[in-house]
Amino acid sequence: MGHSKKAIVLLSGGLDSSTVVKIASSKGYTELFAMTFDYGQRNKFEIKAAERIVRDNKILQHKMVTIDLGSFGGSSLTSDLEVEHGRSLAEIGQGIPSTYVPARNTIFLTYALAWAEVLKINDIFIGANNLDYSGYPDCRPDYFKAFEIMANLATRIGTEENSIRIHTPLINLTKAQIIERGLELGVDYSQTITCYNPNSEGHSCGICDACTLRKEAFKKLGKEDPISYQ
Amino acid sequence: MGHSKKAIVLLSGGLDSSTVVKIASSKGYTELFAMTFDYGQRNKFEIKAAERIVRDNKILQHKMVTIDLGSFGGSSLTSDLEVEHGRSLAEIGQGIPSTYVPARNTIFLTYALAWAEVLKINDIFIGANNLDYSGYPDCRPDYFKAFEIMANLATRIGTEENSIRIHTPLINLTKAQIIERGLELGVDYSQTITCYNPNSEGHSCGICDACTLRKEAFKKLGKEDPISYQ
Repeated sequence: MGHSKKAIVLLSGGLDSSTVVKIASSKGYTELFAMTFDYGQRNKFEIKAAERIVRDNKILQHKMVTIDLGSFGGSSLTSDLEVEHGRSLAEIGQGIPSTYVPARNTIFLTYALAWAEVLKINDIFIGANNLDYSGYPDCRPDYFKAFEIMANLATRIGTEENSIRIHTPLINLTKAQIIERGLELGVDYSQTITCYNPNSEGHSCGICDACTLRKEAFKKLGKEDPISYQ
Repeated sequence: MGHSKKAIVLLSGGLDSSTVVKIASSKGYTELFAMTFDYGQRNKFEIKAAERIVRDNKILQHKMVTIDLGSFGGSSLTSDLEVEHGRSLAEIGQGIPSTYVPARNTIFLTYALAWAEVLKINDIFIGANNLDYSGYPDCRPDYFKAFEIMANLATRIGTEENSIRIHTPLINLTKAQIIERGLELGVDYSQTITCYNPNSEGHSCGICDACTLRKEAFKKLGKEDPISYQ
């Protein structure tokens, strides 16, 4: 066993970022610092899920950052536009969906970078995925590489050691492959939430794009999805 | 006269960004959108100065963004560390000062990028300056170039047109050259504030690094600084 390493993990409370926590640990990053954003999204249940995952994974510090993305408009996740639902996998793969939040991953990574600078941590993990959400420009490998280059020029820690790394362990995995890897590592998917549109008790709708992708992936693996749908 | 162009200007209310507003206008960017950040800095007078500059320059929209940099610590501008004062120009040029806020320019530019995406604006102006503040890693030309590359990969507008431009018109100017250019363009420097540590009436201290640089620059030009010092 190598010595313990520190990392910051962006944690939404969803399936992807919960898997990333276990992947980071499995790579020797056992001192984890989690950052969760409250950006006026309608899905407050995600934040509760993030808190459960922090507790269950012995994460050292959890920073909640409130950001005001809603005031920019332009996304159904933060405004009153209607979220797509009932779409097939083929339809989901086409174009940039209404749930795109402008510059969201850049804002998230930038806050993580500021925290990394203060904590003197070089490694940042994000559960971005290029295959299932090909419509988002800020989920592409080239984008993350460009962010990493910028981050090393932007900060003291980067300038001194040129060593900030943005880890995207899910970038080329399908949703089914992510769940498969997560189950091997012991992720408790009953604690995660994926739905864009849960009801007032936090039960997933089962028909939004995110639910559709999740349900299809569990089905493909022949595994049971441990969360309950409406 | 070419046709009117749109741009976003990051406006702190200080000498530099006030000059940038006039420079942008002089380059044909006459439809200006200003963005000002309230990041828990002690200098609330900057925000009032920004509001005066918005009024005087017929800026179309002014977006105030409250961000929680203070919770990260690590800077005397947002926490209780003491600001350097009484330092000579030579001393000011050495090392990264305590007023460095982690990843500040990256956070500012990222919010501007999100707004640019929503407004469909390609041009962002920032009054960063490499000479007087050589200690800040995120004031270097290489950093801004890297941000621009990342920004074009991060957004719909960038992906479609590869056309987001980060303008840093002050990057290689001395403070005296900035003021000289600003006076030519009609900047009213009586409306700006530069001090890190103004008193309760908003009068500048005259001895912090920012005041020292400003006073020396006016002196070098043989011009009178129109603001009052304590």
